[in-house]
Amino acid sequence: MKQFYMPVKVLIGENCIKENQELFAGMGKKAMIVTGRHSAKVCGALDDVTEALQASGQTYVLYDRVMNNPSVDCVYEGGRVAREEQVDFIVAIGGGSPMDAAKAMAMLAVCDIPKEKIFDGVAAYPALPMIHVPTTAGTGSEVTPYAILTNPGRETKTSISASSLFPRYALLDPAYLQQLPEHSLIHTVIDSLSHSMEGMLSVRASEITDSIAVHAIALIGECLPRLKDNELSQEDREKLLVASTMGGMVISATGTTVVHSMGYSLTFFHGTDHGRANGLLLPEFLKIARQSHPERVKKMLQPLRLASLDQFAEQLHDLLGQHETLTVEEIEKYTALASGSKNIKNCCVPVTPEQIREIFTKSLGQAESGR
Amino acid sequence: MKQFYMPVKVLIGENCIKENQELFAGMGKKAMIVTGRHSAKVCGALDDVTEALQASGQTYVLYDRVMNNPSVDCVYEGGRVAREEQVDFIVAIGGGSPMDAAKAMAMLAVCDIPKEKIFDGVAAYPALPMIHVPTTAGTGSEVTPYAILTNPGRETKTSISASSLFPRYALLDPAYLQQLPEHSLIHTVIDSLSHSMEGMLSVRASEITDSIAVHAIALIGECLPRLKDNELSQEDREKLLVASTMGGMVISATGTTVVHSMGYSLTFFHGTDHGRANGLLLPEFLKIARQSHPERVKKMLQPLRLASLDQFAEQLHDLLGQHETLTVEEIEKYTALASGSKNIKNCCVPVTPEQIREIFTKSLGQAESGR
Repeated sequence: MKQFYMPVKVLIGENCIKENQELFAGMGKKAMIVTGRHSAKVCGALDDVTEALQASGQTYVLYDRVMNNPSVDCVYEGGRVAREEQVDFIVAIGGGSPMDAAKAMAMLAVCDIPKEKIFDGVAAYPALPMIHVPTTAGTGSEVTPYAILTNPGRETKTSISASSLFPRYALLDPAYLQQLPEHSLIHTVIDSLSHSMEGMLSVRASEITDSIAVHAIALIGECLPRLKDNELSQEDREKLLVASTMGGMVISATGTTVVHSMGYSLTFFHGTDHGRANGLLLPEFLKIARQSHPERVKKMLQPLRLASLDQFAEQLHDLLGQHETLTVEEIEKYTALASGSKNIKNCCVPVTPEQIREIFTKSLGQAESGR
Repeated sequence: MKQFYMPVKVLIGENCIKENQELFAGMGKKAMIVTGRHSAKVCGALDDVTEALQASGQTYVLYDRVMNNPSVDCVYEGGRVAREEQVDFIVAIGGGSPMDAAKAMAMLAVCDIPKEKIFDGVAAYPALPMIHVPTTAGTGSEVTPYAILTNPGRETKTSISASSLFPRYALLDPAYLQQLPEHSLIHTVIDSLSHSMEGMLSVRASEITDSIAVHAIALIGECLPRLKDNELSQEDREKLLVASTMGGMVISATGTTVVHSMGYSLTFFHGTDHGRANGLLLPEFLKIARQSHPERVKKMLQPLRLASLDQFAEQLHDLLGQHETLTVEEIEKYTALASGSKNIKNCCVPVTPEQIREIFTKSLGQAESGR
C-alpha cells in the first residue's frame, strides 16, 4: 500500500525565524537548543533562535556538544539534560547530525529506553515537540521521522524511526547556508540528490513522491554548475535548501536504498562525509538499477538534462574530486555489512551481495590489494 | 513567507479500507459516517467502512443527508447529531460535498458557533478527528483544511478554514470511481486540474507546490483521451484519484484563485457542477494570466503536451460539451460578486473587475442580451 505522510509545517524564506517568532511561543516555556560546536553560531541561526525565545519570554538551555555522526552516548546525555532541565520542547539547529541527535534526545527526554534497546524499535514512543532549523542543504531530517545514530555494536549507522520524531516546524532560511564551507555544501547537496534518486527506486515510491523527487532533482541540476564554481546566488541557496527538504519529504515515505547502507561503512570506518559517501557509490548503483528499471533511471537523468549515466558519473566526479579507495578485504567486510541491511528489501531493484561488491569495487576499488 | 503543511496521512491502493482497518480502531468507540444519499452506497465504500468499524467493535451513526453544495443548515444538523450521539470521530465518504460538510460537522460537534458567525473565521477552533474516503477524482478535500459551504447571505459559496479540518487519514481506493457517472468524473477531474493550475498562479506557490501541481497535471493529461472516450482503466482511475489528492495538497498551501470565486456564481445561481464551472472559465482566465506570466502558463501546458491555450480550450470544450450561457445582467452581477472575493488577492495575476467581466463574457456570454 502506497502512502504519504509528512505532518511538519515547513516555512521557507529569508528571515524565516524572525518572521515566525510566534511559533516558538506556542511550544512551551523552556527550550533545549541542540546544535554542534560551531556552524549554528557562525551562520547566525543560533542568535536568531535565542532572540525568538527571548522575545516570547521563554528560557532555554543550550546543548552544543553534538559531534558528526552522533553517538548513542551523546543522545542519552542530551536526553538526560532535557529531562533534568525540564524543558518543554527542543530546537535543533544544524545539519543532519544535530537534527538527528535532537530527535533522539526529544524522545529520551520523555521515554525510559535502555541504551541497549535503542535500536530495537521505538515506533510507538512519544517525544517532545521540536522546531528544526537546517543549516545545510542535504539531510532533509527536518521533515523526516528518522534519526540516524552511530551503532558501534553493528559497526554501522542505524536509523530509529517514529511518528513522534517528525518536528512540528521546519524553518528554512537560505542565508544560513552562506557560511557553509564549499565541500560541506557539495557533500550535503549530493546527499539530497541521492535521497530523491533513491526514493524513486523504492518499492514505496508513489506518484506523490515521484513528483517531489523529480522536481528536487531539477532544482539541484539548475544549481550544479554554480555549485561547482562556488558561485551560488541566494536564490540558488534557497533552491538547494528546498530541494533538500523535498528529498526529505520523499524518503519520509520511501526510505532509502542500499546506497545509504553501503555509504554508512565509509562513514563508520573512514569518516567519509555522509553525502560524499552516497555520491561516490550512486553512479555504479544506478548502472545496476538501469538494467532492470531503465525508465526509472531515465526519469532521474532528464531533470538533470543529462543523456547518460556516464555523464552523471563524470559530473559527480568533478564535484567530489579524487575518490577514496578500499582494499579487497575492506570491500568484503562492507559488502557483508550492507548485505544484511534492511534497506535492501526497500529497493525495487533486487541487489545481490555480488552486486554490492561490484558497486564497491567499481566505485572505490584499487588495483593492488592490501594497504 | 512560503509554506507547506499537509498533515494528513494518505494511503493509496485497491482495498485501501480493508487493508487499513486498524486505523479505524485508533479513532475512538463511535463514529458518525457522513455521506450523500447514493454514491457511497453504490460504489461499495459505505460497506467497506461499516465492515471496518464492525471489525474493530466500533459503533456508528449514519448521516446520509448531505446535498450537493451543502447548506449551513445541513452542517448544523449533522453537528447536532454528532453531539447528541456522542461520536468520537467522523468518517466522510463521497465527493467534495459530503467531505466538506463532514468537516464543518466535525467542528460543530465540539464548538458552539452561532450560525450567523460560521463564516467569520474559525481558524482556531478544534474539531473531531476524521477519516476521509473520496469517491470522486476532483475535490482534494481529503487533504485540505477547507470546507466550502453555500452562503445565502452573500449569494455564493464560502470556505471556512482551520488546521483542525485536516482529516487524520485519507483513504484512496480507485475502485470507488468505477460507478461514477461519466459526466461527474469529467467534471471532478477538471476541478482537480483547475486546482493544480490555479495553485501555480497563487502568490503562495512554492517549489514544493509547483512540483506536485505539474505532476498532477501530467497525470491528468495522460488520462484525458481515455476519459473523453469513457475507456478508463483501473490504473487511470488511480492516477486521476491521486492527481486529485495532489491538487488538494497544492491548494492546501496556495488556496485557489478568481476562477473558483467566479465559478461559485454559476453553481449558486445555475446549479452548475463545481468542476464544470471552473472548467468553463479556466481557459479565458489563463489567457489573461499569460499576459503577465507567460512562463507560468507554459509550465502548465507542457505536462499536458499542449502547445497553446487554444488547444487547451478546445480540449476542455470537447469534454464539457455545449456550454451554459449568461445574460449581460447576470455577468454584471457575478462580476460584482467575484470582484469582492478574497481569492483575488491570492493570485499572482492582478485581475480587475473588467477582466472578470471579460472572462465571463468570452466564456459564457451570449450574443443577444436579456433572457
